[in-house]
Amino acid sequence: MPERGDGTRQRLLEAAADCFSANGYDATGVSEICHRAGVSKGGFYHHFPSKQAVFLELLEQWLGALEARLTQIRDESPSVPAALHKMVDTFDQVLGSARGRLPIFFEFMSKAQRDPAVWAATIAPYRRYRAFFAEMIRRGIAEGSFREVDAEATALLLVSLAVGLILQSLLDPQGEDWAEKAQRSIQLILYVLQREGA
Amino acid sequence: MPERGDGTRQRLLEAAADCFSANGYDATGVSEICHRAGVSKGGFYHHFPSKQAVFLELLEQWLGALEARLTQIRDESPSVPAALHKMVDTFDQVLGSARGRLPIFFEFMSKAQRDPAVWAATIAPYRRYRAFFAEMIRRGIAEGSFREVDAEATALLLVSLAVGLILQSLLDPQGEDWAEKAQRSIQLILYVLQREGA
Repeated sequence: MPERGDGTRQRLLEAAADCFSANGYDATGVSEICHRAGVSKGGFYHHFPSKQAVFLELLEQWLGALEARLTQIRDESPSVPAALHKMVDTFDQVLGSARGRLPIFFEFMSKAQRDPAVWAATIAPYRRYRAFFAEMIRRGIAEGSFREVDAEATALLLVSLAVGLILQSLLDPQGEDWAEKAQRSIQLILYVLQREGA
Repeated sequence: MPERGDGTRQRLLEAAADCFSANGYDATGVSEICHRAGVSKGGFYHHFPSKQAVFLELLEQWLGALEARLTQIRDESPSVPAALHKMVDTFDQVLGSARGRLPIFFEFMSKAQRDPAVWAATIAPYRRYRAFFAEMIRRGIAEGSFREVDAEATALLLVSLAVGLILQSLLDPQGEDWAEKAQRSIQLILYVLQREGA
């Protein structure tokens, strides 16, 4: 029975992701999600209190998968600079998986300013990524790869750069060779982190 | 008569900006804009073919004002590094004027993927800003401030960083001292640009 319940839950999440991508978050109703998943409304409300709850869980799943990937790269790399390069190598995959989700993501961001629950869910990942990279920069200093930079400021720089690159590359996929540009950018940043002085 | 026509046009634009900020783009109808502006529907359609046309003109006005400010700073500064620092000093003002517009901006971005006219209007500013900063970096190299970096890659780095910082600071105004963080980030980038080697 628990397996069956979990299957329904995951089916609802996948159906919701498909509906949101195809028609947008606002234009999607619970009944469409149920129809696509082959689940009754009662089944839906057994698993989720609302459409918003489904979206927030999808967001957590997506971000959780990305964080797991970044953590794995960090733990398997011989040094922090090597890990950062490897992370940029996965940039194309991140973009590929994000592409269909961008419109919903923006729709949700537009709600964030009017809904405290959405707002909290929207800003939490940025804060987590900043903390993740600040910890990596501190490791990089400890292992002797980097000079004594301000770890928080550098993490903010890395996260901001990634956010800006991802946003532009999703909006304008043909505008640049984004994967190559991401590599060049990280090389510039590593150059700052690795040199003496200033 | 032309003054009066221009006055009506500008009043419609301001009324639309107020309505969009208060209730969102989708939730705002042409009749609300007319009501707020004190203009008839006939008057509205004399000036604009659609609500979308009003939004696109607002976007152009906002971006045009920002570009005019950046161009003025560039032309009045003694060197490119000085201009970049001065631009970051205006970061707080840019954020202040952008804050109320963020939800509409996201709403519009979510439409960009489904509407070619919106898409073109959404990506054009990023491309223009990249070209603007690439030209500045080339000036910086020519005046001897910077080493021979790749101007396009550096411009993309600057624009991405700015986009990422603006996005996070608008979503999470209390999360950091954003103006100070922007200054630190630009110092890191200038450090790369001004040193020899790599």
